[in-house]
Amino acid sequence: MKRALALLLATVVTAAPALAQTTATAVAEDFKPSSLNQPGQEYPQVNSQGYVRFRVNAPEAQHVKVSLGLGGRGGTVLNKGADGAWTATTEGPLDEGFHYYHLNVDGGTFNDPGAQNFYGSIRWESGIEIPAHDADFYALKDVPHGHVDQILFPSPSTGKQRRAFVYTPPGYDKNQRERYPVLYLQHGWGEDETAWFNQGHANLIMDNLIAEGKTRPFIIVTTYGMTNDIKPGSPGGLNSFDIKPFQTVLLNELIPYVDGHFRTLSDQKHRAMAGLSMGGFETKLIAPKNLDKFAYIGLLSGGTFSLDDVNNTPGFKEKVKLAFVSFGSRELQGGGMAGPPGAARADPRANAEAIKKAGVNSVFYVSPNTAHEFLSWRRSLHEMAPLLFRD
Amino acid sequence: MKRALALLLATVVTAAPALAQTTATAVAEDFKPSSLNQPGQEYPQVNSQGYVRFRVNAPEAQHVKVSLGLGGRGGTVLNKGADGAWTATTEGPLDEGFHYYHLNVDGGTFNDPGAQNFYGSIRWESGIEIPAHDADFYALKDVPHGHVDQILFPSPSTGKQRRAFVYTPPGYDKNQRERYPVLYLQHGWGEDETAWFNQGHANLIMDNLIAEGKTRPFIIVTTYGMTNDIKPGSPGGLNSFDIKPFQTVLLNELIPYVDGHFRTLSDQKHRAMAGLSMGGFETKLIAPKNLDKFAYIGLLSGGTFSLDDVNNTPGFKEKVKLAFVSFGSRELQGGGMAGPPGAARADPRANAEAIKKAGVNSVFYVSPNTAHEFLSWRRSLHEMAPLLFRD
Repeated sequence: MKRALALLLATVVTAAPALAQTTATAVAEDFKPSSLNQPGQEYPQVNSQGYVRFRVNAPEAQHVKVSLGLGGRGGTVLNKGADGAWTATTEGPLDEGFHYYHLNVDGGTFNDPGAQNFYGSIRWESGIEIPAHDADFYALKDVPHGHVDQILFPSPSTGKQRRAFVYTPPGYDKNQRERYPVLYLQHGWGEDETAWFNQGHANLIMDNLIAEGKTRPFIIVTTYGMTNDIKPGSPGGLNSFDIKPFQTVLLNELIPYVDGHFRTLSDQKHRAMAGLSMGGFETKLIAPKNLDKFAYIGLLSGGTFSLDDVNNTPGFKEKVKLAFVSFGSRELQGGGMAGPPGAARADPRANAEAIKKAGVNSVFYVSPNTAHEFLSWRRSLHEMAPLLFRD
Repeated sequence: MKRALALLLATVVTAAPALAQTTATAVAEDFKPSSLNQPGQEYPQVNSQGYVRFRVNAPEAQHVKVSLGLGGRGGTVLNKGADGAWTATTEGPLDEGFHYYHLNVDGGTFNDPGAQNFYGSIRWESGIEIPAHDADFYALKDVPHGHVDQILFPSPSTGKQRRAFVYTPPGYDKNQRERYPVLYLQHGWGEDETAWFNQGHANLIMDNLIAEGKTRPFIIVTTYGMTNDIKPGSPGGLNSFDIKPFQTVLLNELIPYVDGHFRTLSDQKHRAMAGLSMGGFETKLIAPKNLDKFAYIGLLSGGTFSLDDVNNTPGFKEKVKLAFVSFGSRELQGGGMAGPPGAARADPRANAEAIKKAGVNSVFYVSPNTAHEFLSWRRSLHEMAPLLFRD
């Protein structure tokens, strides 16, 4: 377990957004402010090819760098202009979708004052969005919208009032007699319960799917996975990783609270668990051992189910109605990341096919031209949601 | 109108948190991380007297300053230590409560990487909290908690899906037959619909009041007041200030949406409007002219009701069940800010007493030792809530 987590962490920490294939084409001068900029801010900007242009005002700084761009070469170095502003354009286009980044100003780590912040890497990072060719599925449209409720639930096991977010689908308020299935959806390492809605647009993905009649309306719950609690000398807390504290919060505290305060269908066949990256590892540690509670399981860039996993898990074939596994295509090029604990180099697609042959409803999805990043996970949710709760 | 708004804007922009009275006492070395720090961050720190100590890593910077501290002298200048970190302690204690701030690093404006961010001054600013002696009323306690729902409502008048937050009190989910009054609560200039919950803890104030049986449970709705829309050359959009766009969104779009999707009591005597600073001005522009819709009105550091206002507003005496006006005590020391449009130097307490004598249920509250800042407004909500919807 520890080895797999260390692998995952290494992947997450070092993963810079890969540059897409560059061509000899000139950089198009059609840069526009990023959709994630703070109100009224002109920079950072993105062009139609996916290049990013930065502009940071710090007239007396010695050097300014952006962590985004060329991972291997340490990011994009900005150059000071006559007006005191530091500017640069990435050397190549970035992958479509959402990327975290930050600035290095004279040796210190700061956020880009032009961009909004998103919680990742155990800090609020700057965020930028490269418009994706398929961005329509997570766009804010003129369709009925569900609500995203912030709840505070009592957690005796941790001695706290803990926070979670609960997406209720359009119609939830009106259909007072209807009850809904629930998906418990976990964030990745260094993120928190805000990630699936802020970075992932999970609510908009669901609103759009429901408006098109492509998925059954269901509830989504996100809460903090606790594995990245900070302890001095133990970055991310992985050295002392233990699933039990989170499992206790989830199974004994959060699920009863949600079932007590929302109109849920609370039987096994109407409850799913899925997660991205570290959240996938958590899902794999919790759901298969609690098949009286979960019928649908999703691992998004967070491991696979091997035939051994299935054979060694009592009830898996009978009780698991969907085993959904997905990756960004660039993750599979590397190979190591995709492996499950104890078999780091296993081919996840082969795993998915093997358990399908063994009778499991196994679905394997690969997000084209994306890495270990949020567009992979937005697309994965978009693929997975219509497959859930089809009883 | 324009003059009053210009006054207000000038006050808001230049208002740095006032330093409390200093004494000859030594600075107590009991500094602890601010409660608003990002996870695991040791700085900024606050001591038991309200001094703040900053520490910012930027080893190659030329100069680092914090906007917080001595407004007149341009903030707190940090000094570089042997380890490359810049540190300083404010020259005196700050007022209790919440303060916005930012860094100036080599001439550029950045946020403190140690602190969480809060939307104010038309940007996400760093925030710090000086523990207040009466902080208990907005503390997160082991009591039943209401939910804060993010909603997206259609706004044909602005061609957008707009965001609002809706606080539903504890018990809302269980008491399926109960309907609740609604308070529409506006943020200040440069802020947005997140302010009353993030900076103001409006939900915790309500949870605690309800747990103590001190207020009737009601719904609170916050949305963006639009007056600080950014236009080039027009900071804050005040030069072209017009209440109509926001009034249309509020009256024709948001209120019908809320009444359609939440179990509200939708008659006049169960609807209130209040706001802080600019939100108070908006409240005063909208509510008295729409007394078929609002029975309770609150202006928090955002103007007063004079006898002329009352006499010149048809139905005021008959239909307004509460005219609540409040200020931070330090605002009244200055005088100018407290004045209503057209009478900038009027004494707001005298105004409150005059309309009370004229038969209005007028309540005037002054927050002790606070300025134009959120502790004034947390306390004002705490005072006002028990007075609402007492039919």
